[in-house]
Amino acid sequence: MSSDPPPASAGRGVPRELSPDEIDAFLGSQRIARLGCHADGETYVVPVIYGWDGEAIYAVTMEGRKIEMMRANPRVCVEVDEYDTDGRGSWQSVIANGVYEELSGGDVERALDLLRERFARASGRTPESRALGPTVVVFRIRLAEPSGRAVSR
Amino acid sequence: MSSDPPPASAGRGVPRELSPDEIDAFLGSQRIARLGCHADGETYVVPVIYGWDGEAIYAVTMEGRKIEMMRANPRVCVEVDEYDTDGRGSWQSVIANGVYEELSGGDVERALDLLRERFARASGRTPESRALGPTVVVFRIRLAEPSGRAVSR
Repeated sequence: MSSDPPPASAGRGVPRELSPDEIDAFLGSQRIARLGCHADGETYVVPVIYGWDGEAIYAVTMEGRKIEMMRANPRVCVEVDEYDTDGRGSWQSVIANGVYEELSGGDVERALDLLRERFARASGRTPESRALGPTVVVFRIRLAEPSGRAVSR
Repeated sequence: MSSDPPPASAGRGVPRELSPDEIDAFLGSQRIARLGCHADGETYVVPVIYGWDGEAIYAVTMEGRKIEMMRANPRVCVEVDEYDTDGRGSWQSVIANGVYEELSGGDVERALDLLRERFARASGRTPESRALGPTVVVFRIRLAEPSGRAVSR
């Protein structure tokens, strides 16, 4: 997953911090982020399929509970993890705070291009171009100081 | 993943609600839950390895940010998902509110037994018995009205 070998001090089973480059590579390689939002005393965690441009995650979704909550309180948490890809229980995770931003106009088109490119690459299929309905929301969350950890087993 | 076939009305790509039995089976089959907690204006999402007894998730962790936050505000959200296990983009997720409860005495032993049994089953290895250090926390979150969704593609 990462381009750098673990530092010599990181033993098996001991968590180590990911470097900024490792965090960037990890966020670019994954597809599902969990958004944590909070409004009116309720905390809600929901998975979204995302694209990453090196500064922010981008997603397309329908209006619903998470959008209402993020409109009410745009300060959210973004979490991405990957577990046990080697069958020995190794894992990586990245956690960051961010601010929900709903996109419009040219920003929507740029976000959709990013997502189409990302998922065409993943699936090997030609990306579809679809008209967006009125309840579709395209949003960005710029990540502030993401932190990442990894355990190798 | 589920014991019941999808209802005839659920088309490919259309989300459907999971039944209580499907939610129970799904939570029993997965290993990573994302906890959403909120305190002092900050929302935080963190992955934990869990065991499920049909009513609550159980986990063992070290004292740290998530434990401080859940002690300050025990109302949390638990999210479990599984994506794209069939290579076509099918997914399932379960989301529930719950209340963080720190365990002590016999409840700790029962939780550790549950986790040992769960992960011995998963790994095929003999479960280890380890002494718990002073910064180790064992907790339970009973899930209130979990909701589940699935999309088949």
